[in-house]
Amino acid sequence: MKSFASDNYSGVHPEIMEALSRANQDHAGSYGADNFTSKAIEKFKEYFGNDIEIFFVYNGTGANVLGLRTLTQSFHSIICSALAHINVDESTAPELFTGCKLIGIPTTDGKIYADEVERRIQRVGDQHHPQARVISISQSTEYSTVYTTDEIKALSSIAKKNNLYLHMDGARISNAAVSLGKDFAAFTKDAGVDILSFGGTKNGMMFGEAVIVFNPELSQYFSYIRKQGMQLHSKMRFISAQFEALLSNDLWKRNATHANAMAKKLEQELMQVPQIKITQSVDGNGVFAIIPKQITEALQHEMHFYVWNDSTNECRLMCSFDTKEEEIERFVAKAKALCSAL
Amino acid sequence: MKSFASDNYSGVHPEIMEALSRANQDHAGSYGADNFTSKAIEKFKEYFGNDIEIFFVYNGTGANVLGLRTLTQSFHSIICSALAHINVDESTAPELFTGCKLIGIPTTDGKIYADEVERRIQRVGDQHHPQARVISISQSTEYSTVYTTDEIKALSSIAKKNNLYLHMDGARISNAAVSLGKDFAAFTKDAGVDILSFGGTKNGMMFGEAVIVFNPELSQYFSYIRKQGMQLHSKMRFISAQFEALLSNDLWKRNATHANAMAKKLEQELMQVPQIKITQSVDGNGVFAIIPKQITEALQHEMHFYVWNDSTNECRLMCSFDTKEEEIERFVAKAKALCSAL
Amino acid sequence: MKSFASDNYSGVHPEIMEALSRANQDHAGSYGADNFTSKAIEKFKEYFGNDIEIFFVYNGTGANVLGLRTLTQSFHSIICSALAHINVDESTAPELFTGCKLIGIPTTDGKIYADEVERRIQRVGDQHHPQARVISISQSTEYSTVYTTDEIKALSSIAKKNNLYLHMDGARISNAAVSLGKDFAAFTKDAGVDILSFGGTKNGMMFGEAVIVFNPELSQYFSYIRKQGMQLHSKMRFISAQFEALLSNDLWKRNATHANAMAKKLEQELMQVPQIKITQSVDGNGVFAIIPKQITEALQHEMHFYVWNDSTNECRLMCSFDTKEEEIERFVAKAKALCSAL
Amino acid sequence: MKSFASDNYSGVHPEIMEALSRANQDHAGSYGADNFTSKAIEKFKEYFGNDIEIFFVYNGTGANVLGLRTLTQSFHSIICSALAHINVDESTAPELFTGCKLIGIPTTDGKIYADEVERRIQRVGDQHHPQARVISISQSTEYSTVYTTDEIKALSSIAKKNNLYLHMDGARISNAAVSLGKDFAAFTKDAGVDILSFGGTKNGMMFGEAVIVFNPELSQYFSYIRKQGMQLHSKMRFISAQFEALLSNDLWKRNATHANAMAKKLEQELMQVPQIKITQSVDGNGVFAIIPKQITEALQHEMHFYVWNDSTNECRLMCSFDTKEEEIERFVAKAKALCSAL
Repeated sequence: MKSFASDNYSGVHPEIMEALSRANQDHAGSYGADNFTSKAIEKFKEYFGNDIEIFFVYNGTGANVLGLRTLTQSFHSIICSALAHINVDESTAPELFTGCKLIGIPTTDGKIYADEVERRIQRVGDQHHPQARVISISQSTEYSTVYTTDEIKALSSIAKKNNLYLHMDGARISNAAVSLGKDFAAFTKDAGVDILSFGGTKNGMMFGEAVIVFNPELSQYFSYIRKQGMQLHSKMRFISAQFEALLSNDLWKRNATHANAMAKKLEQELMQVPQIKITQSVDGNGVFAIIPKQITEALQHEMHFYVWNDSTNECRLMCSFDTKEEEIERFVAKAKALCSAL
Repeated sequence: MKSFASDNYSGVHPEIMEALSRANQDHAGSYGADNFTSKAIEKFKEYFGNDIEIFFVYNGTGANVLGLRTLTQSFHSIICSALAHINVDESTAPELFTGCKLIGIPTTDGKIYADEVERRIQRVGDQHHPQARVISISQSTEYSTVYTTDEIKALSSIAKKNNLYLHMDGARISNAAVSLGKDFAAFTKDAGVDILSFGGTKNGMMFGEAVIVFNPELSQYFSYIRKQGMQLHSKMRFISAQFEALLSNDLWKRNATHANAMAKKLEQELMQVPQIKITQSVDGNGVFAIIPKQITEALQHEMHFYVWNDSTNECRLMCSFDTKEEEIERFVAKAKALCSAL
Repeated sequence: MKSFASDNYSGVHPEIMEALSRANQDHAGSYGADNFTSKAIEKFKEYFGNDIEIFFVYNGTGANVLGLRTLTQSFHSIICSALAHINVDESTAPELFTGCKLIGIPTTDGKIYADEVERRIQRVGDQHHPQARVISISQSTEYSTVYTTDEIKALSSIAKKNNLYLHMDGARISNAAVSLGKDFAAFTKDAGVDILSFGGTKNGMMFGEAVIVFNPELSQYFSYIRKQGMQLHSKMRFISAQFEALLSNDLWKRNATHANAMAKKLEQELMQVPQIKITQSVDGNGVFAIIPKQITEALQHEMHFYVWNDSTNECRLMCSFDTKEEEIERFVAKAKALCSAL
Repeated sequence: MKSFASDNYSGVHPEIMEALSRANQDHAGSYGADNFTSKAIEKFKEYFGNDIEIFFVYNGTGANVLGLRTLTQSFHSIICSALAHINVDESTAPELFTGCKLIGIPTTDGKIYADEVERRIQRVGDQHHPQARVISISQSTEYSTVYTTDEIKALSSIAKKNNLYLHMDGARISNAAVSLGKDFAAFTKDAGVDILSFGGTKNGMMFGEAVIVFNPELSQYFSYIRKQGMQLHSKMRFISAQFEALLSNDLWKRNATHANAMAKKLEQELMQVPQIKITQSVDGNGVFAIIPKQITEALQHEMHFYVWNDSTNECRLMCSFDTKEEEIERFVAKAKALCSAL
């Protein structure tokens, strides 16, 4: 029962399962006072340098909302893509927990650009108006596109110039890193990102995400905010051990490389079906394609996927670390057969 | 490196680990749209009946806060023990997420009683004053004592009479059930509890708690509240599979029976040390005892534990499903030796 | 020092001042337990019927936010114009106090229309997505345009069909009533509005607005919400007495009729200046006009006004109950002189 | 229809009414950009020095809640008297708007003392526990007692030592100043208070309170917090003009001196009624007395007052700037007559 529905339909990578088993011995200090957590933090520092703070949380919504809460006061606004996960898929958790207004910029490729952002920084110092404080981007985006390092630096530059912070939702950051062929730090810390949600679950973990704070001043109160945000795990070692495994032996990279490659293969093969139109650049592990409405349901029976846009019948096909080539081949063959019968 | 520090220092029970492995095959629908979740819900219904709603969340704070949010509007107050976990150990998550005031009743045994509660229901209908809406109790309590079914019914009766709800923090509900020798339903649903936080993590799970809503009207919006509360897991099957295992083959009962028995043994043996004074009825899996200050640190080196009350040096010793008899014996022997050297 | 800057630059109408003096005798019950409040409520019922609930608050932001809070739960969204006062001029009070997301619809005339609104009601029942719950409109709008009764009924119809509520920000409702030539009830209660912010301050009062709840079920908790929202005045008689005066002897109508007429005169005269372009239908008490940038500052010295849109130099000229014909004539003469010198 | 029910049953002092009339000419800048506001701020600086920031708000709850919001983050706690207005008479506005927990210290005289406060500063640095951040006191207290300057300095000293702030609810600060025979600054700014709610309404104003921030760093965001807290008045001059009048020609002092003297007279006369027992030191403008239950209702018909404590029949008798000697005499005569008939 495999599918292209979401990368969170996949299970847990075997190396992660082994790490969980290894972590399951003896007692360990709770809430992060354990060796697994120390080691996982060290692993992160290998990638990002020592001058960072790392906090483990349960899920992506938690990581994003707590990061945004850290960067804002309640009278601020947060500028993001209109399609951003924080804007359309996290209920109103960002509003409730931060008090802030989200300003969604319409987007056709999932990205927002520096000039568009700057136009939204309005009425600075006017007590009546929400004060822009954060630019939040998803890397890779909800359209599975990937910001270039320069695009991120341009946003960071706008942020600094206007006294804003730059936040990155990295639920799929490994896919972005593989796509860019760069170290994590190159397009996050070194590009001016202030706080990063580092995703684990969608790349083969069972549960757990990390919030990485690049500006140490900002991390001062994070532990309180995490606890208050109901995101502090008691048996923390079981998140930490997963991250240690993910960051060891390039597991994160192997998983993301495979998922991205599968998406690329899926795109290439679908491009041979004239009735199907690829709509987005396939940078990461997802393919967006307009599929004839008449064949959608039958094709979903082969491999489940979601219709992203009802009016155009644009569909989202997500690959994951465990997607298999033959699944793609069977899927495309089925698509071809269904299309030819139209 | 075993300890009496907390039942969340323990790891994961092997049967739970096996359940996690079994759940890790194929793809599965996310956010609860999977067979493991359906089966876990069925298991809960075997214990509580069919007319309930069950929602899985990440942790105890999440379970409590979302349950309380479901029962309240922002101008309400919540009556609980002054020592309640929601009052002293969940940061101000209950206040932030519900807006409510918590009214803590001083307690010597961890419980609150109907007459004390009723005296706190004041100025009903007065717009200036927080309006009492929920009675929240912990079963077993933070002092590891256990409410009798009659005590709970008395609270429920006060609640109903005054148009309040009864909430139960059951982070250690299995220990309470074993202590009472009763079915879960007897002292929850059948005793008038409206919403229950059903604990998993402290009884051998890796992560995950359940919120059980006994009044179906109250569950109408819970899924939105859970998502907004950042407590909705994407790969839900990995919580559900644990609960299914916990509720199968009496695992919950075996674990809690063992932990309770170990606490009882620890109490019995410590009672033989004249310098040590047991302070609370050992109903569940914890022992509270005043230990001479001078020996505390040395004894903590044998098996770690926490000083609960600095002024009296009352200490908390928690047992769990994996506490061993010989650990208790070694610990008490060390206590005796240290005391005799005073 | 008169101006067109805002109708809240004006002072208090003499009949209101007299009412305040009359109310200032003896002691009176606080928080609304006084005869002035009873009488003011009766006055409102003469206009709206007996089956309503009226609550006095301090200001427009308070009226709007408390009304919206009454209509929503924290996981809801509120659909409004992108230019709505609640969206751009109330800091993030709506978000903080309700938890909701505001969905702003781009507008050129200040209004939103039924079909546009209906397209924003998306993903109903999806726990991940903010659930649309309220349509909020301003009458008259921030562009001083006025919804027809049919336009409001169309919105109400969409609201009912989709299980939403209709909220009206009536900070300038008297100007709208005069413009429509209709009773208040005709385009509020009878048109399907659920909660109305009825403005007083901008129409000659010193302070105070009213929240009118047309659906009695919705008013059940409003007194608690008002107190919690810091909008309950102790010496309430001094808001009530103002409203009683405003609603007596057609004072509301005389004031609004005058302000609207002054706006119309201002529009008519400005239309004779070829360099100035009226941008909006002058339905209420405001005129929007593109004025040459070069003359703006000099013209502001004659009578202050605000530039509404920096990029187009669209300016907002608000008239109020005390605007004088000769002020308009002097202003337009100055505008003509300045333009002719360009 | 005079009463002892509350000082907010009284009306507006004639000098305040005159000031309102004087302010009602021409147009004036809104939201505080007017000369009346500048002058009122200057008046405050005459009393408190130039190095302060003053913000006008609508009411006492607003002043308190916004002040506390300025001093806290959402994971903090606020230590106050169990009887504090913020703890029992402001709904849960403090909890909702700040997120904080209020820790109420039981009190018999309305005050809290340094040693009691220090015992409540617990588990500092523990992420699980609400972190104490503010000590809030009422001056005069809800029991109409007045803190000495030394008592306030002792609290301030504890605050500074533990990195807390000191907040003062001065709804009746003029009564306290008169009682102490000191300048305002002596027991506020100079005694270590960080933020003060300066009351106007209960001392002869129609509406309006002031928040005075003694530490300029703390005032940085107050204007945003005030707007977001729905406490920013558009026609601000009508609050400012009242404050200017109140602080001119010693009006504040004349009013408070009279009210305090009337309370003292009432106390003295009631002490001659053996069946009535004064329960609190009459420092300010209120008298607390146990009155025989049997005569309460009849006595309330003479001059209304509230029963403060149902179990003891302790009653609260508040005097105000317009209480008359003969009213006291008639009231006590009635009390004597009723008591003698017992």
